Amino acid sequence: MRKNILLKICYDGSAFHGWQRQEGLPTVQGRLESILELIYGTKIELEGSGRTDAGVHALGQTATFYAESNLPVERLPKVMNDLLSEGKYGGGYKSGAIKVICAQEVPEDFHGRFNCRKKTYEYRLKLGGGSIFSRNYEYSVYEPLNVKLMEEAACNLIGTHDFRAFQSSGGTPKKSTVRTIYNVEFAYEPERHGDGENEYTNGGDVIIRITGSGFLYNMVRIIVGTLVDIGHGKIPADAVERMLKSGMRSMGGHTAPPEGLYLKEVFY
Amino acid sequence: MRKNILLKICYDGSAFHGWQRQEGLPTVQGRLESILELIYGTKIELEGSGRTDAGVHALGQTATFYAESNLPVERLPKVMNDLLSEGKYGGGYKSGAIKVICAQEVPEDFHGRFNCRKKTYEYRLKLGGGSIFSRNYEYSVYEPLNVKLMEEAACNLIGTHDFRAFQSSGGTPKKSTVRTIYNVEFAYEPERHGDGENEYTNGGDVIIRITGSGFLYNMVRIIVGTLVDIGHGKIPADAVERMLKSGMRSMGGHTAPPEGLYLKEVFY
Repeated sequence: MRKNILLKICYDGSAFHGWQRQEGLPTVQGRLESILELIYGTKIELEGSGRTDAGVHALGQTATFYAESNLPVERLPKVMNDLLSEGKYGGGYKSGAIKVICAQEVPEDFHGRFNCRKKTYEYRLKLGGGSIFSRNYEYSVYEPLNVKLMEEAACNLIGTHDFRAFQSSGGTPKKSTVRTIYNVEFAYEPERHGDGENEYTNGGDVIIRITGSGFLYNMVRIIVGTLVDIGHGKIPADAVERMLKSGMRSMGGHTAPPEGLYLKEVFY
Repeated sequence: MRKNILLKICYDGSAFHGWQRQEGLPTVQGRLESILELIYGTKIELEGSGRTDAGVHALGQTATFYAESNLPVERLPKVMNDLLSEGKYGGGYKSGAIKVICAQEVPEDFHGRFNCRKKTYEYRLKLGGGSIFSRNYEYSVYEPLNVKLMEEAACNLIGTHDFRAFQSSGGTPKKSTVRTIYNVEFAYEPERHGDGENEYTNGGDVIIRITGSGFLYNMVRIIVGTLVDIGHGKIPADAVERMLKSGMRSMGGHTAPPEGLYLKEVFY
């Protein structure tokens, strides 16, 4: 009996050359497909909700695949996780860098990518610089950030806009660069207090969560890099509006590095 | 003018096949020596305070080397760290996995290993299991630990003993297996409260710091594995005394994995 199965997965992007299968390189899709082939005894093609770049992490990536088997779907996470944790350094893969959170059967025509309605990404900035042990998991920012300016600038992202100024070249060409951003949320660890406090400085994390209908190539990283450059006073406080109006990438800030980026949730 | 220079270094052991130089493999010593060769224009031999195994981290490893150069010693950390952070994936090395904390000139006859008086190691246990992002940095322990039993058992380690039951085969043969343990300290994050509370359970870290005159091969990992097995009730609560008395490795617990181990400080 053919089943259409949806997986929810977390992974440590620092162990992979991105999501997409590439011959001879460790990738998340490649690793998962080889595990599924072991389980089902036949080639399996995974449809991820989208790709993530090398170094980008996932807390809740999703993917669908078709399989014919009597294996109960609810047993799949345990079976996959056991295989994923075997063979410490086998085949260029270290164990434990991927974990299957859950698996469920979905309708025949459900598609991991096409059915995705929105996604939330999370970006972690470390103020004052992190330790060498966190270098793959956050973006170290050394100078104080004016986070009030950043939060104000981020409000301009919300809504339906042409985001062509917020993409890098090199991605799959898209028919339309219009996307909807539903929410940009700032969180602080430890918590930030007081209204008059513009600056966030030493030893803390700034977490920026962005929910949108979809994202162009490097869009979240360009948004974050632009907000950071605004927070450092390197580019005008209205750079986001200028980018949206002009469509010019050059009016924005730098592209923040992949280490701080996490695909947090995919909504269907 | 020939100088004898002492470096203090931290590194992320998950990026290396241990401290000791090995042809064709990324090692901490190999990486540092190649950087020093670039700086001084000649082959440099580093004398570490001791080796660390693959996967073991350092917060304060030390090493000495001789060099003839007018480069002021106080500039060395910046020069080395700049080179260490270059070339993201060059030569099998990821950038940023080693950081030089400080450098100082020491007397001509000072030796990184022979002059070492004592060392502190730190071992991090994660109760309740960690996330995939911390898998290289702590040891996930899933069942509750009776930490009162562990702390009591650890007291028996303190003093000068023959620790031959606390070594793995495969290390450099030692003339004597007598060592002195000065201190075993338990720390809890979040803090543990109450005298009657024997168990430490979910979502916390247990940190065990051990200071000794020197350590045999895998000695800290065998101590920690034995304490964990005592805390789980898998071996008798007096296993440490039995091991010291009998000299038999088989009376102890398992060897805890390298990921949780940090060389914290070297004392001269």
